[in-house]
Amino acid sequence: MTAISKRCGGMQASPIRKLVPLANAAKARGTSVYHLNIGQPDIPTPEGYWNALKKSLPEVLAYGPSQGLQLLREAISTYYSRSGISIDKDEIIITTGGSEAVFFAFMVTCDHGDEVICFEPFYTNYNGFATMAGVKLVPVTSAVENGFHLPEVDEIESKITDKTRAILICSPNNPTGTVLSLDELQTLSSIVRKHDLYLLSDEVYRDFVFDGGSHLSTLELPEIEDRVIVMDSISKRFSSCGARLGNMISRNKAIMDAALKLGQARLCPPTLAQYGAAWIYHHLTDNYYDDILTTYQNRRDVLIEELSEVDGIFFLKPEGAFYATIRLPVKDADRFASWMLTDFQFEGETTMVAPAAGFYATPGLGLNQIRIAFVLSDEKMRKALRVLKEGLKVYVD
Amino acid sequence: MTAISKRCGGMQASPIRKLVPLANAAKARGTSVYHLNIGQPDIPTPEGYWNALKKSLPEVLAYGPSQGLQLLREAISTYYSRSGISIDKDEIIITTGGSEAVFFAFMVTCDHGDEVICFEPFYTNYNGFATMAGVKLVPVTSAVENGFHLPEVDEIESKITDKTRAILICSPNNPTGTVLSLDELQTLSSIVRKHDLYLLSDEVYRDFVFDGGSHLSTLELPEIEDRVIVMDSISKRFSSCGARLGNMISRNKAIMDAALKLGQARLCPPTLAQYGAAWIYHHLTDNYYDDILTTYQNRRDVLIEELSEVDGIFFLKPEGAFYATIRLPVKDADRFASWMLTDFQFEGETTMVAPAAGFYATPGLGLNQIRIAFVLSDEKMRKALRVLKEGLKVYVD
Repeated sequence: MTAISKRCGGMQASPIRKLVPLANAAKARGTSVYHLNIGQPDIPTPEGYWNALKKSLPEVLAYGPSQGLQLLREAISTYYSRSGISIDKDEIIITTGGSEAVFFAFMVTCDHGDEVICFEPFYTNYNGFATMAGVKLVPVTSAVENGFHLPEVDEIESKITDKTRAILICSPNNPTGTVLSLDELQTLSSIVRKHDLYLLSDEVYRDFVFDGGSHLSTLELPEIEDRVIVMDSISKRFSSCGARLGNMISRNKAIMDAALKLGQARLCPPTLAQYGAAWIYHHLTDNYYDDILTTYQNRRDVLIEELSEVDGIFFLKPEGAFYATIRLPVKDADRFASWMLTDFQFEGETTMVAPAAGFYATPGLGLNQIRIAFVLSDEKMRKALRVLKEGLKVYVD
Repeated sequence: MTAISKRCGGMQASPIRKLVPLANAAKARGTSVYHLNIGQPDIPTPEGYWNALKKSLPEVLAYGPSQGLQLLREAISTYYSRSGISIDKDEIIITTGGSEAVFFAFMVTCDHGDEVICFEPFYTNYNGFATMAGVKLVPVTSAVENGFHLPEVDEIESKITDKTRAILICSPNNPTGTVLSLDELQTLSSIVRKHDLYLLSDEVYRDFVFDGGSHLSTLELPEIEDRVIVMDSISKRFSSCGARLGNMISRNKAIMDAALKLGQARLCPPTLAQYGAAWIYHHLTDNYYDDILTTYQNRRDVLIEELSEVDGIFFLKPEGAFYATIRLPVKDADRFASWMLTDFQFEGETTMVAPAAGFYATPGLGLNQIRIAFVLSDEKMRKALRVLKEGLKVYVD
C-alpha cells in the first residue's frame, strides 16, 4: 500500500495529548485530576457574546467576505485605538483562530525550505504550522535562569542564514509567561532591519500583563512597520477558544494582498462567531479587562506562594499570559508527569501538568521542566499545587 | 524591503472575485444584477440548526476535540448508514469547511513537489490548497462535447509520473454538474490500484443527483477502501456555507492518524456550529433532501429550456450539483462577462456569470465557456438567463 507523506509521518503527536489517556484512566479509578496542563480558560465567555450571536441568526448562513466582516475588522481597529495604536480595518484579516494567522504568516513570508528563528521553549503548535508551510524553525534557546528573556544578540545572529526570512516571537509568552521589554523589542527591530527579515509577533496574550505593566505591541515600532506581522486571537482574551476566530495584522500591503489570496482559497472564517466577536470588541469595558487580569494575577501569586520556596524548584515570576515554565528537582519531567497520573494520588486527587520538553526544538532540553497553566480558581490552584508538592516528596527519580 | 514569498506571489486572485467591483459599480448605477456567478445557495438554513445551536450555548466556549465532537461524527456515520455505507465515527475527522479537508488530504498523501492528477475544468480553490501544500496539480482535460465525463484511460495514464501520489475527483461536479458513473469509478479504481495511488474524492454535492439517479460514493468501492479519502462539507447540503464545517473520511488508519496530527496543530474546528450540524444530520428527513433536490432540478430544467435551443450555445444536461459549464458563441467569455457588467443592461437588469477559463489549469482552454450556478428561484433564473441572451444578441466580440 502506498505510504502516507513523509512530512506527516514525521510530525509528533501533541506531547500533552499523549498523557490524556493516563488522566482518563486515573479518573476511571476514582482519582480527581486538577488540569494545569492546558491553556483552556475557565472564565465564562461574556454574556453579550451569546446575545449578539442570537440576534444575528440569518435566514441563510452564507459565506462571509474572505478578509472577514467589516463590522469585526472595524471593531478590532477601535480596540487598538484605545491603546493609541492606529490600525486601519484593511490592515486586518480575520482568520480561523490564531492558528490560521500563524500559518498565513509563514506562507506569505517563506517559501518551502526557508527558515524562521524562534526562541525555545515555544508554543508547540508552531511546529505543526511550520510543517504545513514547509518552513524550518530554527531555535535559539532562552533560559529559565533569566526568566526566559532574550539571549544575547550574537547568539541570535549566529542562527541567521541566507534562508532566514523571519523571527517569530510570542509576548506575553506561552509557555513561559515572559513579557519582552521595550529594549528587547528594539534589539529585535535592529536585527530584522540589519538582516532584512520579517518579525512575526504572536500577541494573543497582550491583555494579560501583570504588576501594572502594559503591553508593548510590535505595531508600536514605526521603524519596522513594513516588517511586522501580528498574529492574534479572541480565544484567551474573551474565553472563546471554540469560536475559532483570530486575526493577522500588517501595515505591509503586499503581505496583506498575499494573505487575502490564501484567505480566498479557504473562502471565509466562521460567519456567525464574527457577530459575537464584533460585539465583544466594541462593548467590553475596562472593567472586564481589569477583572480578568486581576484573576490571572492572583493565580500567579498563588503559584509563587506555593512553589517559590520549595527546595529544588526554580522559576522567575511570570510577567504575563497565564503560564509558567518551572524547573523541577527531577531528571525526567515527562516520566514524573505520567507517574503523577498512573501511580500517585493524595487524598483522592492528583495534578496533571505539561512536560516542557515538548516546547523545546533542541533534543535533550527542558527535560526537568514543566509548564503550568493558571486556568483554575485560586482555591483549586492552591490544592493542585499542594498535591504536586506531595507528589514531588515521594517521587523517586 | 524583503519580498513576499514566491509561492504567494504566484497565486492568482480569485477569477470571479475580480469581477465583483464591476458588479458593485453596475449596482451603484442603479442596474440590478442577477448573481449566477457563485455557489452560494439561497435556500434557508434549516430552522432546527438554529434551535440546536441556541440550546447548546455553553458557559465557556471551549476548545472541542481535534477530530470533532463525537456527537457529530456519530451523526455523520448514521447519515451514511442510511445509504447503506458503513463508516465508523473514528474514520471521520471534522474539518473547518470542506476547504480544510482538501488541504489535509493533500498534506497526508503528498510531500512537497509531489503531483496530483485532476480533471479540468475543476473547482478553482484546489489551486490554492495545492499551493499551500506545495503540491503540483496535473490537469487532464475533459470536454464539454461529452458532458465533461472522464477522458480515455490512456490519456489519464499518460500524465502519471513517479511523483504522482493521487487522483482528485469531484462528483457531482463543480463547475460542470457532471456525475461519474459506476463504470467511470471502476476505471479510476483500476488506475489507482495499478499505479499505487490514492483517490481523493470531493463528494460535497452527493445529495444533488438529478433525474432519479443516486450518488455512488467512492466509499462503496471495497477494492480500494485503503486508497480513498472523501472530502465533504455541510455548506451546500444544509445551506450552511458560513458555518465552516466539513469532514474528511478514510478507512485507512495511517491516513487518519496523520490527519489527526494536522488537526491537533490547529486545535479544533468551530465548536458551536458542530451542535447545529449534529442536529441536522440526525433529524432532517427524506422530505428535506427530496425538496431541495427538486428545487435544484427544476432550476436545471429552466436552464435547459432557456439556453439549449440558442444558436451557438452548447452544453449537455447537468446531471447533478447546481452548476453547468456552457460554451458561448464568443471568443473571450471573460471579456463578455465583464462587458455584461460594465456596458450592458436590459430593462435595468444584468446578469453576472463566472468565466470558465479560471477553472482550467491549461492556459488557453475554456476561453469561450462560462459557469452558471443555479442558486436563484426558477423565476429569477429565467429572467437572468433571458437578460444573458439579450446580452449575447448585441455583444460584439
